Amino acid sequence: MRKGVLTPDRDRQIMEHELQETGFSPESEKVKNKNFEEDEEEEDESVEKIFESREVPSWTKQLTLRAFVVSFMLSILFSFIVMKLNLTTGIIPSLNVSAGLLGFFFVKTWTKMLHRSGLLKQPFTRQENTVIQTCVVASSGIAFSGGFGTYLFGMSERIATQSGDVSRGVKDPSLGWIIGFLFVVSFLGLFSVVPLRKIMVIDFKLTYPSGTATAHLINSFHTPQGAKLAKKQVRVLGKFFSFSFFWSFFQWFFTGGENCGFSNFPTFGLKAYQYKFYFDFSATYVGVGMICPYIINISVLLGGILSWGIMWPLIETKKGDWFPDNVPSSSMHGLQAYKVFIAVAIILGDGLYNFCKVLSRTLSGLFVQLRGPTTSISRTSFTLEEDPHASPLSPKQSYDDQRRTRFFLKDQIPTWFAVGGYITIAATSTAILPHMFHQLRWYYILVIYICAPVLAFCNAYGAGLTDWSLASTYGKLAIFTIGAWAGSEHGGMLAGLAACGVMMNIVSTASDLTQDFKTGYLTLSSPKSMFVSQVIGTAMGCVVSPCVFWLFYKAFDDLGLPNTEYPAPFATVYRSMAKLGVEGVASLPRECLVLCYAFFGVAILVNIVKDSLQSQWGRFIPLPMAMAIPFFLGPYFAIDMCVGSLILFIWERVDAAKAEAFGTAVASGLICGDGIWSLPSSVLAIAGVNPPVCMKFLSAATNSKVDNFLQGST
Amino acid sequence: MRKGVLTPDRDRQIMEHELQETGFSPESEKVKNKNFEEDEEEEDESVEKIFESREVPSWTKQLTLRAFVVSFMLSILFSFIVMKLNLTTGIIPSLNVSAGLLGFFFVKTWTKMLHRSGLLKQPFTRQENTVIQTCVVASSGIAFSGGFGTYLFGMSERIATQSGDVSRGVKDPSLGWIIGFLFVVSFLGLFSVVPLRKIMVIDFKLTYPSGTATAHLINSFHTPQGAKLAKKQVRVLGKFFSFSFFWSFFQWFFTGGENCGFSNFPTFGLKAYQYKFYFDFSATYVGVGMICPYIINISVLLGGILSWGIMWPLIETKKGDWFPDNVPSSSMHGLQAYKVFIAVAIILGDGLYNFCKVLSRTLSGLFVQLRGPTTSISRTSFTLEEDPHASPLSPKQSYDDQRRTRFFLKDQIPTWFAVGGYITIAATSTAILPHMFHQLRWYYILVIYICAPVLAFCNAYGAGLTDWSLASTYGKLAIFTIGAWAGSEHGGMLAGLAACGVMMNIVSTASDLTQDFKTGYLTLSSPKSMFVSQVIGTAMGCVVSPCVFWLFYKAFDDLGLPNTEYPAPFATVYRSMAKLGVEGVASLPRECLVLCYAFFGVAILVNIVKDSLQSQWGRFIPLPMAMAIPFFLGPYFAIDMCVGSLILFIWERVDAAKAEAFGTAVASGLICGDGIWSLPSSVLAIAGVNPPVCMKFLSAATNSKVDNFLQGST
Repeated sequence: MRKGVLTPDRDRQIMEHELQETGFSPESEKVKNKNFEEDEEEEDESVEKIFESREVPSWTKQLTLRAFVVSFMLSILFSFIVMKLNLTTGIIPSLNVSAGLLGFFFVKTWTKMLHRSGLLKQPFTRQENTVIQTCVVASSGIAFSGGFGTYLFGMSERIATQSGDVSRGVKDPSLGWIIGFLFVVSFLGLFSVVPLRKIMVIDFKLTYPSGTATAHLINSFHTPQGAKLAKKQVRVLGKFFSFSFFWSFFQWFFTGGENCGFSNFPTFGLKAYQYKFYFDFSATYVGVGMICPYIINISVLLGGILSWGIMWPLIETKKGDWFPDNVPSSSMHGLQAYKVFIAVAIILGDGLYNFCKVLSRTLSGLFVQLRGPTTSISRTSFTLEEDPHASPLSPKQSYDDQRRTRFFLKDQIPTWFAVGGYITIAATSTAILPHMFHQLRWYYILVIYICAPVLAFCNAYGAGLTDWSLASTYGKLAIFTIGAWAGSEHGGMLAGLAACGVMMNIVSTASDLTQDFKTGYLTLSSPKSMFVSQVIGTAMGCVVSPCVFWLFYKAFDDLGLPNTEYPAPFATVYRSMAKLGVEGVASLPRECLVLCYAFFGVAILVNIVKDSLQSQWGRFIPLPMAMAIPFFLGPYFAIDMCVGSLILFIWERVDAAKAEAFGTAVASGLICGDGIWSLPSSVLAIAGVNPPVCMKFLSAATNSKVDNFLQGST
Repeated sequence: MRKGVLTPDRDRQIMEHELQETGFSPESEKVKNKNFEEDEEEEDESVEKIFESREVPSWTKQLTLRAFVVSFMLSILFSFIVMKLNLTTGIIPSLNVSAGLLGFFFVKTWTKMLHRSGLLKQPFTRQENTVIQTCVVASSGIAFSGGFGTYLFGMSERIATQSGDVSRGVKDPSLGWIIGFLFVVSFLGLFSVVPLRKIMVIDFKLTYPSGTATAHLINSFHTPQGAKLAKKQVRVLGKFFSFSFFWSFFQWFFTGGENCGFSNFPTFGLKAYQYKFYFDFSATYVGVGMICPYIINISVLLGGILSWGIMWPLIETKKGDWFPDNVPSSSMHGLQAYKVFIAVAIILGDGLYNFCKVLSRTLSGLFVQLRGPTTSISRTSFTLEEDPHASPLSPKQSYDDQRRTRFFLKDQIPTWFAVGGYITIAATSTAILPHMFHQLRWYYILVIYICAPVLAFCNAYGAGLTDWSLASTYGKLAIFTIGAWAGSEHGGMLAGLAACGVMMNIVSTASDLTQDFKTGYLTLSSPKSMFVSQVIGTAMGCVVSPCVFWLFYKAFDDLGLPNTEYPAPFATVYRSMAKLGVEGVASLPRECLVLCYAFFGVAILVNIVKDSLQSQWGRFIPLPMAMAIPFFLGPYFAIDMCVGSLILFIWERVDAAKAEAFGTAVASGLICGDGIWSLPSSVLAIAGVNPPVCMKFLSAATNSKVDNFLQGST
């Protein structure tokens, strides 16, 4: 599961956090099996032999204008999709296949048109394809790591009002400071890992499963057979894109009022609807369910049943006892506190366990690499200065490895450039950030920037080893440490949230770029072009993402409020974590803390059990992280996802080959079509065009009252 | 298009009336092409050679208990379906394929089970299959010719109140007299054509396209290849049956109130919904659309656009001018009169044209048969006494013909039996009917029974020639003649409607039975078993259909009212025809008569144009009859039907072979599942179980009013 366009690392793949275990990445398997079965087999011999006759363009020629134009279009598309996912549930599946397919499709069309008009200068190469993929991933990655659904929106007054802690500091979003903030924090990560690329990719031979899968995907597009399949996949994607778009369009007409429309369809009756058990006809989450592994969908559903089916109804009966019965249901002094803090406890428990796990693997991996017998590793050169001639190609290396290594080492990025860039940006950032967040002192930032390269390396190394980025865990670490350091009196909450943003952006882009280097290595793309592409993509993202967020924010007045179309659940979760870090657990209602401890422990325990069992049994153990999401939101999207699973399951039984080849394309189409509908829908909302009809669901008794009322009023 | 289970003749196939032209029977073509392609080809050689080795059971062995048990089950199933169709739109497509498939499936299962338990005495033969088909068709045919959606329900007070002519005579339905009435009128037709079977089938060699197609279907089931395909088709049918059933079940939950639920979904907006343009998610009519030829669906849609899209909105603007503006919308003194009488005018115009057309063909056909050179006809023996030895088998006859003729002539039904039966039943009927309908004098009935055998022969002959029964046209003839004879003063309306029932039942069962004889001839089934099966089936129908109707009548209080789930449109149409016949056109609102004349003329003109053009162009001319149905009801079901067409059209483009083989099975599944849901739904209604939720559609403005009201009231 290569970092998708949406999911610059595994971290983001499922929700804002790590969800999948190391050993469990069926997506990357699927990608490999699907498009590249032949390639895979041949790879044992040689992939590069197929491409031998094709000239590899120089790095400047890999960076074409058309590539960036296509990237820009796609990054807008995917920013909308990621933003929608951020603000609805925070679950963000890997969309790398759709990004790859769409990139391939657009440039192919472009090339064909130019070819017909006789203007074609340059054929479309896999290096160019890699550049597009890198750029789009970097750009739409900002839509996630920008924190629009998490820390950044968590600072806003709207979320603070809900949490009942406006006095602890708020900072409302505004287009200006968000773009500025993103520009000063998003580039550091890139510079921090540039010098390490040879160690990671060539010396350590880290696998980066997602990066590898993407490279395979791109390689396959450029073989005749792969291109044919890709064309078919694009057609399927297009069909479901249109279907999903028009379905959302159709749904829109019936949402003329609160709780109207298909997204409030009480599929299992009104009682079940009250506890958020219903199918909300969202094409997006059906698609997400088709992409996510079965165990995730089932975990989410189990979490929903446990929380909304059992726990909340039980806790509700304690109303007036455990918590006051005169507070509104959305108050943080009532049931809402249980929902949020138990979810936070699970997320932290799971995060802590996985942080320790990945860190220990990273350290032991490093230990083996550095001290152990250098068996297959050619040589562990720790010289940051990389000299192509200094790296002796082992005679045992395959043709592919030799060719890839040669191209990888051809174009160099000087270390002085990387170090210089890092220091310059860090200095600028340290100077500017305290002016944006006056709670964030310059010395906090300096400390972050001093630790960051090490953490960035750890994260990039861990991701390479386990396909698993821990960016948001590092972010949470920053919330707690900086928040506690600043203290409640000095706006610790805001300082913590801002520090989270700084930290997340660094470690996340670092592992992103390293993955890209791996992809580049496998597609003979130059590290220079990868770096430039990532920089340009990040810059695009720093402008596009805030604009997209701004559109949502302006269009939907109820953005971030519970029980609306865009509840932005993790904004509340992040703010609550900051509160915990700064104020401790004093303000929680009765028994809530006990429950939190219990669930924190259970989350760790379940993980231990899951890992200690053989994967054959362990894979049936649900993931605590996934179970936590519906605690706050309700299980409605879990039902969508399970419908997606069910569709895929039946499809696999009926026609396994087709399901393999086109399942992801169908899912991507569903997600993209619904996602892009949020563009026209927010434009309509801003223009004040309201949907004409309200599809309302009333109990038979209420309905007869309403009928009487309507007859009386006309 | 063999008389389907639902459609004992073409007459009933589409709505209560003739809709399709002679040259246009794609259904029978389809049936032939589908299951019997090989058979068809081989038939040029010999079908019977395939079955040569199999013994043909004697006629008493063809009539097995299991056959009648299965028939009884199926006739209940199909009675529900036909009743639902009768009471919703009156459009009844041919369901012969599904009846054939289901009959085959049930008996096969039965045989297999018995075989396993070691109790099997007799294999399942095609003769038995034919017996089941005949019995089910006869039984569920009564659900149509019983007039529950037409003349019989048209007598009720509910319909009379709507038409505003309660004073002209009403007779409310009641289980007792309906069963009695059906028993005394339904058997005459059978006896009237029994003596003519040899002339029709062997001497005249009439084609009876639907009867022939059914025979092919049944023959194919009993070949190994055909049985395999049939098994697959049954599976597909079963799948869509379940889907359709559960979809209706699901829909039910959301209909807790007036105008609630999917059947009131304003798919194209509220304005369009007001004029009945919406997709009502009815699986039945999507299935009907898949079975009906494209031109019918398009005609219905065109009719809907012409009436509800153009004419009614225009006429509405004349409110207060052409008709008083203080009458309710359902009053026959307002817009409703235009809707009903213009539809009646078209139906009558179309009926008259086709009556003349079929009659002229019948006469010219007879003329050729009787006076022309006896080329291929073996001999035109008009001896009613049939002697197997008297019919010399021409040496030119094929093996099939010889074998079939031999079996057909083996078992005889004595003519004295037929004539005696006819006279006995006619006498009983003449004695009893005036006690049921005191407006219907005994001499009216006598006149009908004297003319009936000739009309029955005409209809049977015409159906054999053109695959087109005119039963309901003869019925309308009776309405006008008997109604006018009785006169307004002496309850002419009721007399006319009752006479319609008497007439329709005779001519309809007559053509039914002759078709069955043809089917029997082609499957080596004995005429005796056909006759007995038809008698038993008719008796079943005389009990089952009234009971099913009674269930609907008791369960749904608003049965027969406009804008409800079961508007029974043709009840009003038939009553209006009776009124026209008795009272003339004096009571119509302004300009209505002019419009009626115009549409009457246009209906005839369109038919003339359609027939005078070559079929290549003529097939693009819409059918006036089909266009008339939505005039009264609104185009919503036309949209369903066009969706069905569209599905089939796309399916044919994507996979023509599969669409051919399984299209009808899918459609039948959709129709049957939804139809049988009306059983539990009426039981629930009788038990007083109301659906829990109302899915309501409000304009955004009304919705905010309602929201305020609801907030205030809680």
